[in-house]
Amino acid sequence: MWVTLLTDFGLRDPYVGIMKGVIARLAPEARFIDLCHDLPPQDVRAGAYALSTAWRYFPANTIHLAVVDPGVGSARVPVAFEFGGHHFVGPDNGLFGAVWSEEVEFDGDPPSPPVARDLSGLPAPDGGDGVRSSTFHGRDLFAPAAGRLARGDALESLGSATRLSDVRPWPAPVRDGPVVRGEVIAIDRFGNLITNIRPTGPGRFRSGREFPRVDHYAEVAVGDALSLVGSAGYGELSVRDGSAADRFDRSVGDPVTWEPATAPSEDRA
Amino acid sequence: MWVTLLTDFGLRDPYVGIMKGVIARLAPEARFIDLCHDLPPQDVRAGAYALSTAWRYFPANTIHLAVVDPGVGSARVPVAFEFGGHHFVGPDNGLFGAVWSEEVEFDGDPPSPPVARDLSGLPAPDGGDGVRSSTFHGRDLFAPAAGRLARGDALESLGSATRLSDVRPWPAPVRDGPVVRGEVIAIDRFGNLITNIRPTGPGRFRSGREFPRVDHYAEVAVGDALSLVGSAGYGELSVRDGSAADRFDRSVGDPVTWEPATAPSEDRA
Amino acid sequence: MWVTLLTDFGLRDPYVGIMKGVIARLAPEARFIDLCHDLPPQDVRAGAYALSTAWRYFPANTIHLAVVDPGVGSARVPVAFEFGGHHFVGPDNGLFGAVWSEEVEFDGDPPSPPVARDLSGLPAPDGGDGVRSSTFHGRDLFAPAAGRLARGDALESLGSATRLSDVRPWPAPVRDGPVVRGEVIAIDRFGNLITNIRPTGPGRFRSGREFPRVDHYAEVAVGDALSLVGSAGYGELSVRDGSAADRFDRSVGDPVTWEPATAPSEDRA
Repeated sequence: MWVTLLTDFGLRDPYVGIMKGVIARLAPEARFIDLCHDLPPQDVRAGAYALSTAWRYFPANTIHLAVVDPGVGSARVPVAFEFGGHHFVGPDNGLFGAVWSEEVEFDGDPPSPPVARDLSGLPAPDGGDGVRSSTFHGRDLFAPAAGRLARGDALESLGSATRLSDVRPWPAPVRDGPVVRGEVIAIDRFGNLITNIRPTGPGRFRSGREFPRVDHYAEVAVGDALSLVGSAGYGELSVRDGSAADRFDRSVGDPVTWEPATAPSEDRA
Repeated sequence: MWVTLLTDFGLRDPYVGIMKGVIARLAPEARFIDLCHDLPPQDVRAGAYALSTAWRYFPANTIHLAVVDPGVGSARVPVAFEFGGHHFVGPDNGLFGAVWSEEVEFDGDPPSPPVARDLSGLPAPDGGDGVRSSTFHGRDLFAPAAGRLARGDALESLGSATRLSDVRPWPAPVRDGPVVRGEVIAIDRFGNLITNIRPTGPGRFRSGREFPRVDHYAEVAVGDALSLVGSAGYGELSVRDGSAADRFDRSVGDPVTWEPATAPSEDRA
Repeated sequence: MWVTLLTDFGLRDPYVGIMKGVIARLAPEARFIDLCHDLPPQDVRAGAYALSTAWRYFPANTIHLAVVDPGVGSARVPVAFEFGGHHFVGPDNGLFGAVWSEEVEFDGDPPSPPVARDLSGLPAPDGGDGVRSSTFHGRDLFAPAAGRLARGDALESLGSATRLSDVRPWPAPVRDGPVVRGEVIAIDRFGNLITNIRPTGPGRFRSGREFPRVDHYAEVAVGDALSLVGSAGYGELSVRDGSAADRFDRSVGDPVTWEPATAPSEDRA
C-alpha cells in the first residue's frame, strides 16, 4: 500500500521519519513516497496546491497523508476521506479543498464537500507514553489513521461521519463575458506566477501587464514576458530567464485575467 | 526489514543514496526510512537527541543506522548492538548514549552500556575496489553491517564482543531537594530550548528567567515566555511566536532548573 | 525492482514524488532510492559526476533514472540503455558519459557509446490529460520509461535503437611523459577540488600550487594543502579544515597535474 506524505515539517528534524515509523508499525507492508516537506510553514494554500498537482498520478488506493496544520490543538477537525479512488488524511482546514473541487465547471453547480471521518477518537500510537501530544498530531493522530488505512482497516472504522468543510484554498475563476478572471495562487522558486485559470486555445493573460501565451519559453526573447500552460494544467505567467514576481512586483492573490484570442478584448492595447 | 538512516551528510550529494544501495545489494528486502541528514556537521549531541526521540516509534527489529562520525579513521570503535528489541549500527562516540541511558532514574544506579559487536573486521562492500575508504565508513563499514543485519545475519556474526563506551551526549539531570537541575541540550529551528528534564505536574522552569509551565502556547500572550512538555517528553522553554534562544540569549549547555509547583522555592520571585 | 532517482528539481516541490507516483502506477513492486535532487540547476556535469560515483554500489538490474535536462523540449534524444548490468534512463546530453566511459585506459582505444533506445514515442502517463507537457518530461516521458522497465518490459520495447551520443561531461586525463594532466571536475560543499585523475602510489598534485598526497587529513597541519584519493577513487585537492577552492581561487575546469613520486619532475621545486 502506497502512502504519500506532504508536510511543512522540513527535513532537518526526524518528524517525518517518525510518522513513517508509526505507520510502518501498524502496516508492515506500507511503502512511502515523499511529496514535499519544505512548504512554507503553516501555508495551507501552498500545501493544497502541491497536493492538487500530484495525487492523480499515483496508483488507485494510495493514501495521501498531508499535514499543514496551523490549528493543531484547536477546534479544526482531523479527518480521513475517500475521493477519486484515493484516500486522504489530515486536518480539515482547506488543505484538501483543491482535491475535491478541482474540476469546477464555471457554469455548473459547485461540488459539495465529500463525507469524511472524524479522527478525534483515535488512540495515541505505540512507542510513546500513550498520551496524545498537543503539538505533534502528525505522529499521534494522523499517522495512526494512515497506518490503519494502510493495513486495510475500513475508512468507516476510523471515526464518526462528518461533512468536510467547504473551505477552498483559492477562489474558483469566474467568467466575465469572454474573459476569465482569476488570481495568482502560487509563486514557484523561479518566480513564475501560477494562476487558478486553466486556459484552452490561444490568448493572453494580463496581470498588471500582458503575458502572451506561447508553447515554449524559447518563443520569446530573454527578459520578455510570456505565459504558458504549466505541467499541472494551470496558466503560468513568466519572464524568460527571469522572475516575473520580482520584475513586475506580483504576489499571491493578485488578480489575473485570461482573454481568449477570439475575444473582442483583444483590441485593447 | 526496516532500516532507518540518520547522518550529517546532507542531501546535496549522493552519499545517503549510496549507503542504501550497499544495503539493498546485501538485503534485497530492506526498506528505508530517513530520519534526518541535515544535522549540524559532526554534532554528535544533535544526532543523539534526534535518534532518542525517534527510535521507539518504529517496529520491533528495526535497524537504526546512524553516522555522525567526527572520528572517522581514528580509534573510535564501529559498533552494532541490540537494545529494546531494536538494532543500532554506527560509531561508538556517544551517538547512542541517549538510547540505552534514556530511562535514568534519579535515585537508582545508572544503567551500564550494553554489549556490542566491533565491526572493524568487516570487508568493504561490492561495487568499489575492495579497499575501505578512509573517509566514507558510512558506505564501506556501517552500511555493510546494516545490510548483514537486514538480511538476517546474527548480530554475533558481525565481530567480536565489546562493551559500548559509557559516553552520554548530555549529563543526566540531578535532584537538589525539590528542584531538578539540568541543561539545554538542543535548540530547534524555532529557537525553542529543549532541556534534559522531563517534568511531571505543574511547576516552572528557570534559565536566566522564569518560564511558567503551560499546556498550550495559546495560554500566554504573544511574546511571553512559557514552557511545556514537548512531543518527545522533554521540557521545552519557549517564547510564543518568537525565539527563546535569541530573545534570552540562551545556548546549548546553559543551566536549567525545574521547580515543581509545590516546592518551597516557589516563594522565590 | 530498485529505482534510483537523480534530478536538479529540488525537494521544495512535489516533482520528484510525482515521478515516483507515475512509476508506482506502472510497477507496483518498484522501490525507490533517492540519489540527489539538489544538484545545481541544469548542471549536467555535476549530475554526471554524482551518478558515476554511485551506480556501481547498487544491486544488479537497478534502474537509474537521471534528469538534468537543460534541453527539455529541444532536439536532445530521451534514452534508455543498459550498461554493466544496470539500466539508465534520461536525456542523452552527457549525463551518462561518465558511466560508460569511466574505465578509460590512457593508451587504449576510447570506448564507444552503447546502443540505447529512443523514448520519444512513449505515451504520456495516466493521471494527466494524456498530452505530454513541454516542461516536465521527468513525469511525462522518463518516469513512464523507468516504470515500464521496473515492471519487466524489455528494453527493446521502449523505442527504436539509437547510438548514445559521445558526449562526456569532462575530458579524459592525458599522459605527458610521467605526468598526468587533467582538470578540476567538481567542487564539493567543503571546497575540496575533485579531479578527473585516479592516482596510484605516492606523488603530488599541482594546480596553481603543490598538494602533496597523504592518506589522512591529519597528516598535515591545519590550514595546509594536501591531496588524497576520495571515496570515489578520484584525486581530491584540499586544505585541512578549510576550503581549497576559496583559498587558492580554483574553479571547475582549472588544469591539474599528477606527478608520481618517482618522476624526474620531482626535482622541480
